[in-house]
Amino acid sequence: VTLFGTVGETGERALLRHLRQRIPAGPRVKIGVGDDAAAVETPALTLVTTDTLVEGIHFRRDWSPARLVGRKAMSVNLSDVGAMGGTPRFATVSLALPAELPVAFVDGLYDGLLERAGEASVSIVGGNVAATTGPIVIDVTLLGDASAGGVLTRGNALADDHLVVTGALGAAGAGLLLLQAGVRPGQEAAASPGKPSPEDIAPDLIAAALAAHLDPAPPFAFGAAVAESGLAHAAMDLSDGLSGDLAAMCEASGVGAFVDAEALPVDPAASAADRDAALELALHGGEDYQLLLAVPEDAVDRLRGVGDRSGVRVTSIGRFVDTPGVTLRRAGEATALRARSHEHFRSAGRAR
Amino acid sequence: VTLFGTVGETGERALLRHLRQRIPAGPRVKIGVGDDAAAVETPALTLVTTDTLVEGIHFRRDWSPARLVGRKAMSVNLSDVGAMGGTPRFATVSLALPAELPVAFVDGLYDGLLERAGEASVSIVGGNVAATTGPIVIDVTLLGDASAGGVLTRGNALADDHLVVTGALGAAGAGLLLLQAGVRPGQEAAASPGKPSPEDIAPDLIAAALAAHLDPAPPFAFGAAVAESGLAHAAMDLSDGLSGDLAAMCEASGVGAFVDAEALPVDPAASAADRDAALELALHGGEDYQLLLAVPEDAVDRLRGVGDRSGVRVTSIGRFVDTPGVTLRRAGEATALRARSHEHFRSAGRAR
Repeated sequence: VTLFGTVGETGERALLRHLRQRIPAGPRVKIGVGDDAAAVETPALTLVTTDTLVEGIHFRRDWSPARLVGRKAMSVNLSDVGAMGGTPRFATVSLALPAELPVAFVDGLYDGLLERAGEASVSIVGGNVAATTGPIVIDVTLLGDASAGGVLTRGNALADDHLVVTGALGAAGAGLLLLQAGVRPGQEAAASPGKPSPEDIAPDLIAAALAAHLDPAPPFAFGAAVAESGLAHAAMDLSDGLSGDLAAMCEASGVGAFVDAEALPVDPAASAADRDAALELALHGGEDYQLLLAVPEDAVDRLRGVGDRSGVRVTSIGRFVDTPGVTLRRAGEATALRARSHEHFRSAGRAR
Repeated sequence: VTLFGTVGETGERALLRHLRQRIPAGPRVKIGVGDDAAAVETPALTLVTTDTLVEGIHFRRDWSPARLVGRKAMSVNLSDVGAMGGTPRFATVSLALPAELPVAFVDGLYDGLLERAGEASVSIVGGNVAATTGPIVIDVTLLGDASAGGVLTRGNALADDHLVVTGALGAAGAGLLLLQAGVRPGQEAAASPGKPSPEDIAPDLIAAALAAHLDPAPPFAFGAAVAESGLAHAAMDLSDGLSGDLAAMCEASGVGAFVDAEALPVDPAASAADRDAALELALHGGEDYQLLLAVPEDAVDRLRGVGDRSGVRVTSIGRFVDTPGVTLRRAGEATALRARSHEHFRSAGRAR
């Protein structure tokens, strides 16, 4: 069944019925969507996380096709379960939808949600829809199996541990700058006024930056492999930006840290989008959804080996230290690295 | 720490830190709020449900203190887990909040969420906040232990089963009518224009009707006792109204049903609020959050005994039948009982 028209014309019940028909059965799902609750087979220790995307704050309909919004709503939760070393299993999806929204957009959201869930072997087991007079709100709650190797928290980093990150940083922040400058997915070649100037940038790097922001690919399976290996003391995902997230890990662990600027794996897309600001994007840009890990020195090489087998780049960018505070070491100088992660409420306040 | 001012002035991070400090540790919670995900001890079969309250659609700030909104956001989920025969255990709470909202309101929400969770021995293990430019959205996901006696679905009602409901029906619908007529909690004696006319109604019945709508008390522990007893074939909660929910159970079970109007346990608050419409409120009013059960004839008396021990009234109001469709029998006449549950999108659409 394909539905036409708006969410309001379709009605809550018919829309819910339509969406539920799209959700396939999954392994370990005894009772799926359509009853008062789902019933799923769980191990002794289950991870639970929830994260929300709000239209106008976390995504814009004119920046991103619905499918990518759906993928991202799932991906940000995959990132959280991966950062605890778990394996994602079951998701519930709550949508608050304005009456005038085309049903085609909701179908697009579900295209992305189901596609991304399928890639991660996650079953959607609850799909709620509610009416709203405001922007679209997409709330995903994800359950995962904790690893038999233990749960990776952010509170266990020790002084002298290496400060390790996965992948490269700054591409998502660069993508946001490009979107703000008017560049859109599929129109990487179309220039637009403003800085950074997209016409100077290779289209494939523009595409990579946009994809990093709109369709992040957190290394969640690697997170489970790290927990399994027992090689890391602590982990968290880089959602707010390295500066803020590292400060949070240090606070939770009761340690400090330094970051070696020269060692930072700055994404080529960040350098291409804005060479002067690339380091800033890598430090503060946020939404890279890579992992931040605390790894004892004698385990760094073995962790790199785990990364090689998962196709995940692992880079030591500094160390945890006894004394509180985070410093940035650059060209022989050490300066305080202040958390500059953005605050949605404040920017929303400013936008008024 | 008490915070003053608005959510926007406080900022996402400080608000989150404040709320997380309010959430106590709980049994079987290995890792609670504050990390990328929580880690909780789960049995072999876990129930999962999610439900949302949207300001202006499901609640109004001028109708209800924040504490009751928080209680209701938890209660509607307790109802769903109870209707599957489970025992509620762990909840995540996602809030989308406008920047201009006073932090005191958010604290009031958490007063109610934590109070209701405590009453049900539920631990809040995830507490997310996001900025929004629209109305408040409160999304609660609840995990519960499935009963060793099995999971109660809505799809297993058999012809000849008794159609059984808990409690009394229509009070929540009466409460909604009173709220729409201008009556507010704590001002039960203050009359206001419009029908029903509250000055004719005993204040305690007005209070009961308002409480039924604003602070529902689903018999979720009785749901678990029913599953344990093995006495019911099917169960679901009465959230949309008996007419709509019974149609849903019949459809899921591939049966029909009749309801004996004279047997319906109409709540005295419904009769007091609008004597002529009391039956309509009981049939279509919705949000009573009582249970609808399919019970084989030889088990009805024993189920009544289970109810007596839980302080829950159990009433047989009809039967399931082989032929599809739901009929209402009244004064010797049988008429089709049409689902007249409200549709939020449609009423939202009409309100424009």
